[in-house]
Amino acid sequence: MIVLYVATSLDGFIARPDGSLDWLTSIPKSQTGDDYGYTDLLNSIGTTIMGRRTYEEIIGFGVDWPYVGLDSYVVTTNENFKIQSPNTYILTKNWKDLVTELKKKKAKDIWLIGGGQLITTFINEGLLDKMIISIIPKIIGEGLPLFANKPKETNWKLTEAKPYDTGVVNLTYEKAD
Amino acid sequence: MIVLYVATSLDGFIARPDGSLDWLTSIPKSQTGDDYGYTDLLNSIGTTIMGRRTYEEIIGFGVDWPYVGLDSYVVTTNENFKIQSPNTYILTKNWKDLVTELKKKKAKDIWLIGGGQLITTFINEGLLDKMIISIIPKIIGEGLPLFANKPKETNWKLTEAKPYDTGVVNLTYEKAD
Repeated sequence: MIVLYVATSLDGFIARPDGSLDWLTSIPKSQTGDDYGYTDLLNSIGTTIMGRRTYEEIIGFGVDWPYVGLDSYVVTTNENFKIQSPNTYILTKNWKDLVTELKKKKAKDIWLIGGGQLITTFINEGLLDKMIISIIPKIIGEGLPLFANKPKETNWKLTEAKPYDTGVVNLTYEKAD
Repeated sequence: MIVLYVATSLDGFIARPDGSLDWLTSIPKSQTGDDYGYTDLLNSIGTTIMGRRTYEEIIGFGVDWPYVGLDSYVVTTNENFKIQSPNTYILTKNWKDLVTELKKKKAKDIWLIGGGQLITTFINEGLLDKMIISIIPKIIGEGLPLFANKPKETNWKLTEAKPYDTGVVNLTYEKAD
């Protein structure tokens, strides 16, 4: 199963126009020790997939690669794209076939990290099975949209709505059509 | 108190690009008889406020005026705008002062109906106290945004997350700054 797990502002942005996430990290720490399902997610997945720009953002944080122990795939049209992290591979031509194969082959779930363009591509190709959207209680006004490039019309089934003490709410949806 | 009560697609649109709401009315009727808080809202308010375009959309539905028994205000720059419904008034010049006065004067709440441009103006002016956002479990791809014209950055306090059997979820927020 391919699972999107992503945080969005109340107005539907996953980052500021320049990609920054300061608005997200400014949310106070949960007093009840909640991590918004992150540990549960990590326990359920064996693989991550992300777009090229998202990969570069993560590398740009300047911290250790956060997905050690997982296989990670970066979708890019650039066949010479330089990987800078362990167990990370690029997906270029035929990436859809390769993702479909991964989905069949892998016992654990696959985490679609983002960004907005790749999310829409996955939706349009019918590859996305589940979405866990953490809504941050903040309007930021502008930025990179969660669903970029006008995705196709699709219906989803709400399976959970979980509010946290910080005002974040996680909405979980599964594919309905 | 001024309350926004509005339905949005999962991707943050309140209407299709042409203003149509067919995607909204296609949601199946709740089997548990829920009306997504509409009756509760109507019992709490005495006044509605909407933008000119939203007013024209409602008139265009060709049904009886839905807000009989309430005072309704249409915000428009056109001082000669023609009202076609009972107990409805236009707000043109000094509309912000008049809204502030209404807010003080009225014992019951004021429902901000929309649309996206007026919502952003209310947020930017600090006039909006509460938001009840019904998230429809459908991505529509494009349309009129819930928060149009890049609102200012604002924080909100989640007070309720209420899922319904149809997959709609109502998120209620109160002003936090």
